[in-house]
Amino acid sequence: MESSEEELSWTSKIIDSVLSIKGYAVEGVAEGGLIVFSAREDSGRSLWVMGKSNGDKVKLVEGYIGYVRASPRSHWILYSLDISHGRESSSLVALNVVTREKVVIEGFGMARVTGIAWDGSKAGVTVSTDRGFELRIVDSSSWVVEDVYRTDRPIFASDMDNGVLVGTGHLAGDPRSTELFLYYLGESRFVDYTPLRGSTNKKPKIRSNSVLFINSMVRDEILVLDVKSMTSRPPSLKYNDYKLMTLAELLDLGWTSEGKIWFIGKSMGRAFLYIDGRKIKTPQGTIINGFTNNGDLILTYTSFNKPPSILIVKRGKSESKFLLEPKLKEPLPLKDKPRLEWIESSDGVRVPVWVLESKMSSRPGPTIIYIHGGPWSEVSDEWRPIVSSMLYAGFNVVIPNYRGSTGYGEHYRRLIIGDPGGGDVEDVISTASWARKAGLASSIIALGYSYGGYLTLMAMSKAPELFDGGVAGAAITDWREAYELSDALFKRFIEILFNGKGYLMEERSPVNHVEMVKAPLCIIHPLNDTRTPLAPVLKYALQLQIRGKMFEIHIIPGVGHVLDDNKSLRRLLLHTLLFLKTVELPPRHVVEEVIEA
Amino acid sequence: MESSEEELSWTSKIIDSVLSIKGYAVEGVAEGGLIVFSAREDSGRSLWVMGKSNGDKVKLVEGYIGYVRASPRSHWILYSLDISHGRESSSLVALNVVTREKVVIEGFGMARVTGIAWDGSKAGVTVSTDRGFELRIVDSSSWVVEDVYRTDRPIFASDMDNGVLVGTGHLAGDPRSTELFLYYLGESRFVDYTPLRGSTNKKPKIRSNSVLFINSMVRDEILVLDVKSMTSRPPSLKYNDYKLMTLAELLDLGWTSEGKIWFIGKSMGRAFLYIDGRKIKTPQGTIINGFTNNGDLILTYTSFNKPPSILIVKRGKSESKFLLEPKLKEPLPLKDKPRLEWIESSDGVRVPVWVLESKMSSRPGPTIIYIHGGPWSEVSDEWRPIVSSMLYAGFNVVIPNYRGSTGYGEHYRRLIIGDPGGGDVEDVISTASWARKAGLASSIIALGYSYGGYLTLMAMSKAPELFDGGVAGAAITDWREAYELSDALFKRFIEILFNGKGYLMEERSPVNHVEMVKAPLCIIHPLNDTRTPLAPVLKYALQLQIRGKMFEIHIIPGVGHVLDDNKSLRRLLLHTLLFLKTVELPPRHVVEEVIEA
Repeated sequence: MESSEEELSWTSKIIDSVLSIKGYAVEGVAEGGLIVFSAREDSGRSLWVMGKSNGDKVKLVEGYIGYVRASPRSHWILYSLDISHGRESSSLVALNVVTREKVVIEGFGMARVTGIAWDGSKAGVTVSTDRGFELRIVDSSSWVVEDVYRTDRPIFASDMDNGVLVGTGHLAGDPRSTELFLYYLGESRFVDYTPLRGSTNKKPKIRSNSVLFINSMVRDEILVLDVKSMTSRPPSLKYNDYKLMTLAELLDLGWTSEGKIWFIGKSMGRAFLYIDGRKIKTPQGTIINGFTNNGDLILTYTSFNKPPSILIVKRGKSESKFLLEPKLKEPLPLKDKPRLEWIESSDGVRVPVWVLESKMSSRPGPTIIYIHGGPWSEVSDEWRPIVSSMLYAGFNVVIPNYRGSTGYGEHYRRLIIGDPGGGDVEDVISTASWARKAGLASSIIALGYSYGGYLTLMAMSKAPELFDGGVAGAAITDWREAYELSDALFKRFIEILFNGKGYLMEERSPVNHVEMVKAPLCIIHPLNDTRTPLAPVLKYALQLQIRGKMFEIHIIPGVGHVLDDNKSLRRLLLHTLLFLKTVELPPRHVVEEVIEA
Repeated sequence: MESSEEELSWTSKIIDSVLSIKGYAVEGVAEGGLIVFSAREDSGRSLWVMGKSNGDKVKLVEGYIGYVRASPRSHWILYSLDISHGRESSSLVALNVVTREKVVIEGFGMARVTGIAWDGSKAGVTVSTDRGFELRIVDSSSWVVEDVYRTDRPIFASDMDNGVLVGTGHLAGDPRSTELFLYYLGESRFVDYTPLRGSTNKKPKIRSNSVLFINSMVRDEILVLDVKSMTSRPPSLKYNDYKLMTLAELLDLGWTSEGKIWFIGKSMGRAFLYIDGRKIKTPQGTIINGFTNNGDLILTYTSFNKPPSILIVKRGKSESKFLLEPKLKEPLPLKDKPRLEWIESSDGVRVPVWVLESKMSSRPGPTIIYIHGGPWSEVSDEWRPIVSSMLYAGFNVVIPNYRGSTGYGEHYRRLIIGDPGGGDVEDVISTASWARKAGLASSIIALGYSYGGYLTLMAMSKAPELFDGGVAGAAITDWREAYELSDALFKRFIEILFNGKGYLMEERSPVNHVEMVKAPLCIIHPLNDTRTPLAPVLKYALQLQIRGKMFEIHIIPGVGHVLDDNKSLRRLLLHTLLFLKTVELPPRHVVEEVIEA
């Protein structure tokens, strides 16, 4: 007889291995070179400030913090704070990182924030409401808030300088494309801009009269917009290192204090840093974002083996050093280095798939097909608590970056538009099929969260024989109902995904394919989820129950869609690990034996 | 930051404290004085046989075992085995406790068994089907099954001797009363019998032409029915000890090998043993059942401090000894001895309430109101894993034996008939109110399973200010839907409860009082529950969600209503303890502070 202690100590050891290590992310640089960074805590995230001189780290605040913006021109930082138990309705808070003075900006009220821009004097905040989208301007002299612009098109504030705000938005009505906008505070003027009709434009940074941004049609390119003439041109870079590698995507960019352009480029699931076109030596993995700090560059870095860390590239140097480096208690039990396979899907599309073999697993062995959310997201060579947990638990982990994933170019990203729950599901199924044929997988569990939870349910209905179990977190089960329950932002998101093919919604909804589910399901859902609401999931569960399917449900109360606090993550991992144990011990098979007895 | 290890080791220590100790229950005595007993295991229960001579214990079988019957005239025992993952559809198995030969009785198929009688030659099994109730006879010479009797009235086989089967049933159509029946195998004749119209008759034992049984109108009395004349009279007992105490109820009875009558009587939440009217010295607590074994008496005994144990009273002795005595690793952390308080309910009914103060709790301290199921059941001075867990977890436990409970006389038991969710809820609320006023409770969590889960939900809607949280296991949320989903047995059960007042079903259903719920709820439900089906509970959850209530749900898959396996109990306790931790840490209050910030 196994004791609860044996069962739960196995579980808690795994959970602690991945969650007890704090990860760090740079959030910006405030006046005087004070680096602001965040860490994941029990109840949300904490914000910290690191003095440049002595490297002392001081914790500023803790809570369900969303967007954070610092400016080198002010000791004040701005952040959104979810005060709705995860329902993503936030207040706006200003915090002085030196005096620790804190101002909850009253006039802002509560709203779903889509972006913050802050130049040290004024802030622009874009929000999504039931009515549509708004831009609000906050003046730091009085913390007074003014609503300056309303639109029914989603807008996202990015950066601000000298009274000009820059952001992105779905402004042209084309679901594939994203345009830039400029907002002139003095003249109350809103201007759309795209250098190329139908292209995707992102990450704009503004400095005096120049906007630096990423433009993408097939591949990501850097452009500089001259605000006076409203014309864009590629910048001239001194070095050509960046041309030696096919960079399918750019992640972030900016100016150094000397006016040089730095950027982060993606290739084959990893990210690389370039300053003025010269490749900077960084550890293998993913550089996520960066900020200039008088000549230095401060970056967030991670890999499968490394929780988010902070790197510094000193002025003029061609390599990075760790500024903050969390270390794992015990290394990930990987048999080999993580490798990227290219797997052919049913229609010939080639899918980049990470393969991580657990040292603790036999070959073939129990295997997780981990399906990321988004869909506009990816798993690159980066730290993921759920992936690490599965490796520690003795599973191989296979991660399809199904069509629609970012990181592999704009064409690949757009393949999902107008076809959600179609080719993407095929990519997942092809990956599972490959894992079995390649001799890697003896049993296969599909596991995903958000859009990944949706694909988990779809895959288990479309290829029921292939899976031995499924874990669907915060999944969409019914597009029609999800649409009705969504606010403006997520209505728009669903419209973009389906791109006028709303008639596909029934066919592409798991609730209409319940009968096909064969393997046991573990459904985990946050109570206060406003992106993938709980109600349709309870109805899906009702259908599973009526049809006699084997499943379990666990609701995590007090939180919303984004589980970036350790308390909720512990629950997510606990329910997942305990479910995997019952599937592994396999109740389905034992039970059948009993019936035959 | 609390680690998962800290959180889960606290939980698992408590769970292991209560579940790692096996409890034992006597199931009968087979030929040659072989004592058959059962124990709780990971996957159901195990059956064991104990040789009389050497006391060696041999495990026979393990599984989801229901009814077990042994006969001193045979080495074969009969038992029902749930082969439907807890859906309570069982096969019938014969097992030779000496040769270990096992026969799954084919002709029996699968059915919900309501009782087994076995005289060593033939067995009578009563079952409930969609169509109604049946009596099936099994001949041990061939294990052939014959359907001999069908009725739409619930029947429960009890005992058999020399071709005459005796049982009980709701035969008179009066929801309050239970009658006896005799079935003559030779003549295929079914005879109803009650000594007093409207009385409750139970626990019939038959030996040649006499039926020994308990008759109850106001108090339980022993009667002997002469089968020839079909007249009943009280037996004459040599001693009068049993008259010195008010025995509100009798639990079990039988003949000793010398033809004397032994019986177990209940008084004030404890049970006492009498042989021929003489009180036998037994440990304080509850004697549950007994079997004669050539002159000796073998009994199941338990108390709050003692998991089920086996006692023996040797022939002619006036005191019991332990035959099998499980011992707790550490004693229950009780501040004082458990005490029975009489609390006045809103309408003046006096409710017997057990009060167990945890040594680990301050005064006032966090307190559980534990509400038993049934409703025709009780918590006496007996071992209950959930009660012990709560004490180990540092809670005081207060246990109302609300009106309708057994153990306090037939009048009290019948008070609930025609009024479910009425006076019983008032009793629970009065108990909670008392716990606060008496200075015992600083915070109050209602916790119950089955009918106790139902009362938990009702109480939290009717007195929302009184409770800080609620744990409702396998609860009824909607009487109307529960009735529609029930088989014949549970339809009849609901009819008896409402006693013609079906119009009360809406008013008495938690689903119609969701709006009133205030405190966080933890809902736990077995997937394959056929007594309190899951579907209405999912609909209840949907109502909670729509109304923005704070709750969590956990489904335990692979099992049904009766959680008597350690695997499911571990889940039940895990979800309960983790929920209590969040309520205790109190999220509701912290959250409100954040909003005001």
